[in-house]
Formats: sequence, structure tokens, C-alpha cells
Amino acid sequence: MACTASTASAGKQCFSTRIVRDFQESDLRNLKVDRKRFNDTLHDTCKFGTGQRWGSGQTETGMCRLSLTDSDKEARDWFVQKTKSLGCEVTVDAMGNIFAVRPGRREAPPTFAGSHLDTQPRGGRYDGILGVLSGVEMLQVLNDHAIQTEFPVGVVNWTNEEGARFPIIMVASGVWSGRIPLERAHQLQEVGSGKVTMKSELERIGYLGDTPASHESTPMAAHFELHIEQGPILEATGQKVGVVTTAQAYRWFKVEVQGQEAHTGTTPLNNRADAMLLTSYLIAHSHRLATTHNCVATTGTLEISPGSVNTIPGCVSFTLDVRAPADETLDKIESDMKRDFAALAAGEDIGGLRTGGTRGKPLTVAWQTDANTAATRFHPECVDIVRASAVSVTGSDSLVRDMTSGAGHDSVYTNLQCPTSMIFVPSKDGISHNPVEYTSPEDCAIGAEVLLQSVIRYDRLRSTREAL
Amino acid sequence: MACTASTASAGKQCFSTRIVRDFQESDLRNLKVDRKRFNDTLHDTCKFGTGQRWGSGQTETGMCRLSLTDSDKEARDWFVQKTKSLGCEVTVDAMGNIFAVRPGRREAPPTFAGSHLDTQPRGGRYDGILGVLSGVEMLQVLNDHAIQTEFPVGVVNWTNEEGARFPIIMVASGVWSGRIPLERAHQLQEVGSGKVTMKSELERIGYLGDTPASHESTPMAAHFELHIEQGPILEATGQKVGVVTTAQAYRWFKVEVQGQEAHTGTTPLNNRADAMLLTSYLIAHSHRLATTHNCVATTGTLEISPGSVNTIPGCVSFTLDVRAPADETLDKIESDMKRDFAALAAGEDIGGLRTGGTRGKPLTVAWQTDANTAATRFHPECVDIVRASAVSVTGSDSLVRDMTSGAGHDSVYTNLQCPTSMIFVPSKDGISHNPVEYTSPEDCAIGAEVLLQSVIRYDRLRSTREAL
Repeated sequence: MACTASTASAGKQCFSTRIVRDFQESDLRNLKVDRKRFNDTLHDTCKFGTGQRWGSGQTETGMCRLSLTDSDKEARDWFVQKTKSLGCEVTVDAMGNIFAVRPGRREAPPTFAGSHLDTQPRGGRYDGILGVLSGVEMLQVLNDHAIQTEFPVGVVNWTNEEGARFPIIMVASGVWSGRIPLERAHQLQEVGSGKVTMKSELERIGYLGDTPASHESTPMAAHFELHIEQGPILEATGQKVGVVTTAQAYRWFKVEVQGQEAHTGTTPLNNRADAMLLTSYLIAHSHRLATTHNCVATTGTLEISPGSVNTIPGCVSFTLDVRAPADETLDKIESDMKRDFAALAAGEDIGGLRTGGTRGKPLTVAWQTDANTAATRFHPECVDIVRASAVSVTGSDSLVRDMTSGAGHDSVYTNLQCPTSMIFVPSKDGISHNPVEYTSPEDCAIGAEVLLQSVIRYDRLRSTREAL
Repeated sequence: MACTASTASAGKQCFSTRIVRDFQESDLRNLKVDRKRFNDTLHDTCKFGTGQRWGSGQTETGMCRLSLTDSDKEARDWFVQKTKSLGCEVTVDAMGNIFAVRPGRREAPPTFAGSHLDTQPRGGRYDGILGVLSGVEMLQVLNDHAIQTEFPVGVVNWTNEEGARFPIIMVASGVWSGRIPLERAHQLQEVGSGKVTMKSELERIGYLGDTPASHESTPMAAHFELHIEQGPILEATGQKVGVVTTAQAYRWFKVEVQGQEAHTGTTPLNNRADAMLLTSYLIAHSHRLATTHNCVATTGTLEISPGSVNTIPGCVSFTLDVRAPADETLDKIESDMKRDFAALAAGEDIGGLRTGGTRGKPLTVAWQTDANTAATRFHPECVDIVRASAVSVTGSDSLVRDMTSGAGHDSVYTNLQCPTSMIFVPSKDGISHNPVEYTSPEDCAIGAEVLLQSVIRYDRLRSTREAL
């Protein structure tokens, strides 16, 4: 795709066609995104699923764009229309993943930038959205400068990364990678009392594509993902770009505590099997074990039964999300938790939690593993390319650091089938999954330029390699 | 109302009319309930709102007879029809309280036996039901023996004692006593997502009576309530009857913990304001304070927000039900809890709860008082009458003990407007508010005979007093 009147942005200078294979470091360094256009577009698309207002400014609202809702459909329609207008061919697969591909000089699997357009119910404007919108800006810049890549480049929007509406995170890249069966994903029911499934909602909004959801049908040469850090490290160190070398292993457990319902007023403390009191000890203890093992453990959901002010809870179930950089750490903390939870349920004291309390009757604890994802090591070539791009864009390797991703991302699944790495930019106060999530326009633009360079450098690497 | 063919039970011997005023201790001691009839009737009425099955026996199911539901209406209809057939005049007030009155030799406020027919959603066959059904059996025995009381005697069914469907416990006796405004009670909405109110449901099932809900419109000379202990003491001591001299003070609080939502995988422990972790400390600490102050504290409901496995909870709200025999104890524990919760929220350690954990960011705690009921001292004359009746029925004062009620009961409100006391019988394993709640037929009958004697003794006391 050369620069033509129809593909170059109006008002932008159209250089004579430039071929990536011939790019020098200075060419890469001089390649900039249009910061105003990028920022405007990013926030303009936040009209699809605007969430909770947290400030008086025009962009000071969060997002509520749950996967496959009407607002997600609007964002998808915009993405398809926009990438088509930029000269892309668009493919939708059976999971509703959208692949927009800009042709290169030669036919081959494209180098992709990608992330997701869905959000948490009380999410912000950057998580996922930044990764897709920076891919769209990349297409714009390539067109602005009439740049010809050797191989196709693409932008992918992955479905239901958040797992907030259909309760498996990264489910659609998981199907694409072959790790999650299509049928299981299609049958996923909406959380809460909803009756709809992923498949019925894909059909309803018109995004149940004909192409199989598989890395075999839509192969990728590589996958680069720009994402907000969602943590406090870059902000604390004053650095600008995280080169993501690894992603934490994580496991999700559901723990069910079984005690005995009884009347709150008439049951002495020593005659109780209070499921909520034991749960409090277990959550406090899981936090201590996480501290000991230098990892993180969190209880994000909890259900209490029967849920009456004057009935001692007979049953409590809660989730534990445990993450560590190494699989072995998770093995160890899981084993410690299972041993200690059973001891606490039997009435033993651990770490003084029961000191000063009244020993009641024994309870039981049951475990269920809902997710178990091994630690990810991203592809060394992609990691090197991201690092080189970050130093080139920021002008200093002191502004760049290697990082581990605390969160799961679609890149964890793409890494199973193609070279992958990720780019992090700072999150204000380390906050995400929250309406106030914020990354400055400058930092967003730096991230987008690192993404742009990374994709071009990878294309150049491929052409160099094939030329050898 | 003398003994006539229409009011004496078929097949029962009809003594010549006996006047309570002339009763001797031996007459009282020889007055027995019909144990088979009483047990059969009690379990037969459990077909109205049968709950969860817990055993294979015919009566081994719990109850789910939420106030003003269709099954509650069936139980009410049965009660009205039954007491009318036994010669009672029935009055329904604006809270749906049902007063069935058997005339005496003279017109005056009746001496009442009473309790409630509604149950918890996962309740048993005795809580409340025993008190009403033993009142019905009392009417039967009075008729069997053609006993004429000096003053009327009655049986009252109080509406929504449990507070399980409309969230104020003992709300209808509270209105009767003048402590709760009628309007507030009528407007109470069904818990959960229901839209109906107490008033709309009273209308729907035909129990919105014309009589004002007030002790002035339906005055009582006295109120006696037979109830299961709902605790383990009588069973543990091998005693048969509790003479309830006092009822615990209790306070209900709603505590709201405000932290900050953040991503579970990317937020280090020291950067968190985890509302669920702090809540765990608070619940564990409330239990320690209850131990210290020799009272009880319970968290029966808890809501977590946003409630996503991979989001650190930004907000948790939970209830605390705190009870003690003395108001001063509650003043002290409330003050201790408020001081210590604030300190824990600010990050201080109390009692080693934070030892071995990671100090995060500060959170805030807000309190709301939902109920505040002072300790109750039941009427000395009624207490003495119950004690004398219990010794008479069991034949030994070693089988009788004075007790404090741990739970709230309608008697707590009636005691504000008329002499009141209560009778406790043993609860198997101290369990109630649970389908397996159980009191043996023998113990139920003993309780019913104590109730019967108490009402007759009170009638005799009144007639003696008026004769002086």
C-alpha cells in the first residue's frame, strides 16, 4: 500500500514512498505520532460506554464498556470503519476478535499491535483502549509518511480480555492460542443473573465471524502490546517506559468455609462455628503468607450465607487471586495456605490470630482452582526491540526499565504462538480498574511511538533475516 | 364461655364448669396438655411454608414461612379459623397482628399468650411457632375442662417478628408498644430486589386490619411467651425450663470501610488500600473485644465492591450485631470498637493483627447505628408466676433456672406496656435459625404446660387482687 490520496490523511505531507527495509536509526527516531490527533481520538472513542464521572473535566469520567454490550459494539464498529478507511482488510473470527491488516510489500503473516476495547464495569480510559488506539495511530502514521512495510502489519482487538462480563479473562486470545476450547468460551454465561452467553451476544451484535478463532487461521508474525503499567513503579522511579520481559504466574482459587448457622443473640462464642470469623482469619493469614513469599494475594469477591444480620453465617465463599513472578513461589504459597487454612479451621492458632479470642467449634475449608497460569517469559528478540525503541524514543536508557507484568494480558496467550512482548507506560498513583485511572497525554504518546518503532523494527528484522 | 357441646373437644370429658378463682395448687398441677394433639397440630401446621429437608423423617424439614407471604397467609387463616372454632373473638390490627380472645367471667383486658408464626428463610419448626401453637393448645385445654377464667385470655400472633422479609425485627409488636411509628413500618420494603412493602403485602393477603396497631386499642393485662432457648445452656445443664428474667441489650451497626479499587496483579501490597483486608482485621478484632467484655459480636452480612476476582475491593460494608446483658457493657464495647477500628484503618497495629503483614495505605471507616435496644427486665410478678409454674410442672426446682434471653422477642416490646415474662425450653445443640432446630415433643409439652399454668395463675392473681 503506497501513499495515495485516499490513504494519506488530509493535510499531512505525503513523502515519497519509504520502505522500512531501508530505515536507519535516525529515520526511526524521527518518526513521531500526531499527539493531538492521537489524544483526541482516544478520548473521543470513550463516548462509547462512558462510565462514572470523577472530576469536572471533559475527559474526567471512567468507562463502563463491558464486552459485547451495545457500547462495545459501537466501539467495534468505529474500529472497523476507521481501519478500513486507513486501507486495512478486516477479519472477524468466531470469538469476535477483529484483525485489521495493512498490506506489506510481500504476503506473509502480519506483525500485530493489539490489545482490547472492553473495560471493567468501573474501569478507566486507558486499560486496553490505549493499546488498540495506539495501533490505529500507528496505521495513521504509516499512511502519513507513505511507509511501505515489507510484510503486512495489523491491529487486533481481542474480545472480553477483562473477563468482567463473561468470567474468563483473556478468553478470546486464549481460544486463538488453542488453550481454551471454543465451545467452552461460547457457552460462558454473563455474570450475575444474566442468561445470555458469549455466543448469543456475539450473534446479537453481529460479531460472530466466519473465520475460525485460531492462530492457524489468523497467524501472527509477532504481537506487540502497549499497556498502562497499572502499578506504581514507573511513577515512583520517574521513568517513562517499562520493557516487559515477563508476566507473573497467577492462580485463582475459590475457598468455601462451612460452619453452622445459629442465632447471634443466643449462641455463646464458644458454641459457634462462625464462617465469617474464620474467613477473616484466613484472609488476614493469606496476606501474611503473601508478605512472607514476596508475592500478592487478594480477596476480591465474597459471598456470605444466609446473609442475615442476626444469624451467624453458616457458609462463606471467597476468591483468592495469588500472583508471583515464579511458578515455584505459587506452589509454595498454595501449599502453605492449604496447610494453614485447615489448621485454623480446626481451631489451631497461627501467628497469634486467635490470641485474645474465644475458641469455638471446628469448621471445614474446601478449595477449588479456577485458574492456573504459569509465568510468562516474553520473546527475547521482541523484548530487545522494545528496549531499543524505548531508548530511541525517550533518548535515554535511564528512562527505561525492564519490568514484570503483574496482570495477565492477551500477550500472555499470543506469546504461546508467536514472538511477543509488551510496553508499559506510567499509571498515576498506580491505579487502574478504577474510573480515575490516568496516564498523561505525553506518556501515552511516548508509548505509542515505542509501539510504532517496535513494529517497524520487527518488520525490518524480518526483511533483513529473509534477505540473508 | 362455659363448657358447651360446641366448644369442648369431641371425646373429651366435660367437667362441670370450673372457675379459676377457686383453683388450688393441686388443680394447677393436674392440668395437662394433650401431648399427642399438641405435637400433631404443631407439625401439621408446618405444611404452610415447609423448608429445607435435613433428614428422612416426616417432620425432618425446616421452615421457610416469610412474613406476609402466601404460606404465612395460610398459617394465619388456619390460626383464625382454629381459634374461632374454639370460641374466640378475633381482632386483626393495622400491622396484621392477630388477637384471638376467649371471654372470661368479666370484661377486662385479656391475659395473653403469644409469639409469631413467621420464620427465617432457612428456619426451623419451633422458633415462634411453638409459642403460638402452645397458646392454641391452652385454649383447647381450657375448653376440655370447661374452665372459666375470671378475665378474658387470648393468644396473639405478632407479624414479622423475624425481620427476615421486612428488615426490622419485632416490628409489629414494636408498633403496638408505641416505639415504632406505624408509617415507618408500613413503608418497609422487602429485602433484596423486591418492590413490595409491608402495607402492600398486608393488603394483598387480607390482613390489613381496621383496628389501630396500638396497646391502647388492644390492651393486654399481661403477656406470656413460650419460646425455645435458641442456645445450649438448658441442654448442657440437663434442666427443662428457663425462667426468663431479663433480655440482653443489643445494638446493630453497619460499618462501611472505604479503601481504593486497584488491580490485584499490579498493585504491590504496600501500595494498597484493601477494604477487604482491613475488614478482616476489624471482624477479628470485634470478636476479641466481645471476648474481653464477655458479650457477643457477630457479622452476619457483608457486601464487597466492586466484587471482581482481580480488583482489590475499594469498599466493603458489613453489619455488627453486638449483645450484652447490660447496657453499660454495650456502651463500653461500642466505644472500644470505634476507637480501635479507626486506629486499624489508619494503619496502626492492635493485638498483633498486622504482625507479619505489609503496611499499606490508610483507609476510612464509617459507622451507622441501625438498632439500639436497651436491656429488658421482665415483670417480677410474671417472672415469679413462671417460676412457680415451672416447678409445679417439672416437679423439681433443680430442673428450672433463671435465664437471660440472648435474642430479642416480641415480649421485649410488650413488657413496655404490660407485665410480661417468658418461658424457655431446651434447644438441641443450642441451634436455631436453622432447619435442624429441634426441641423434643416432651419438652414442648412441658413448656406448654408451664405457659398454661402461668396464664391461669395470672388470672387467679388478678381475681384475688380485685377481690381484696
